[in-house]
Amino acid sequence: MQDCVFCKIVERQLPSTVVYEDDKVMAFNDINPVAPVHVIIIPKAHIANVNELTESNASVMGDIHLAAGKIAEKLGVADKGYRLINNCGADAGQTVFHLHYHLIAGVKLGPKII
Amino acid sequence: MQDCVFCKIVERQLPSTVVYEDDKVMAFNDINPVAPVHVIIIPKAHIANVNELTESNASVMGDIHLAAGKIAEKLGVADKGYRLINNCGADAGQTVFHLHYHLIAGVKLGPKII
Repeated sequence: MQDCVFCKIVERQLPSTVVYEDDKVMAFNDINPVAPVHVIIIPKAHIANVNELTESNASVMGDIHLAAGKIAEKLGVADKGYRLINNCGADAGQTVFHLHYHLIAGVKLGPKII
Repeated sequence: MQDCVFCKIVERQLPSTVVYEDDKVMAFNDINPVAPVHVIIIPKAHIANVNELTESNASVMGDIHLAAGKIAEKLGVADKGYRLINNCGADAGQTVFHLHYHLIAGVKLGPKII
């Protein structure tokens, strides 16, 4: 997508600190981290959000979650734990309309999830 | 799993308010909702958490997210938006060790995600 910030990161037209990459998925550090570990995990293919998933592209959610486990392992937080958050739409505060998961860890996370 | 609360819900050995069900996925209202819409989405097969995903079972994450879109539509929050949250491990506050996503909506969600 021409004007999508995350597509530009995938294409290396914008810089990012890549922490994981395979043929389907890319992950990079959030530029405004809210915790010691704050990684953004995205499908390389443009999907606006969870509302846009279909039978034909939903398998990437498996890829994203397998990547999440590998990233957590690599960053040393798999055992202690991590939170995965996806914001879909305005009420959830989605700002970049390329599906993405936040992986947040490195601190004891509170129960305040809204 | 014999002592898993969510497996017991799948097997109807414990009650729940089911909001969605297919052959792979089940969703029910959280008994302690933090928002007007607070649904728990689980795979019917027991998987402890994201750390336990493998190439052979990760496709259920696609099923879970397709279900999330359908549930959001059914509950009238797909357009306004919703947040999906998975807690994996102790630091994230995971209490039931059967993989589950929280779908939270029906209110403008804040940025406080930790």
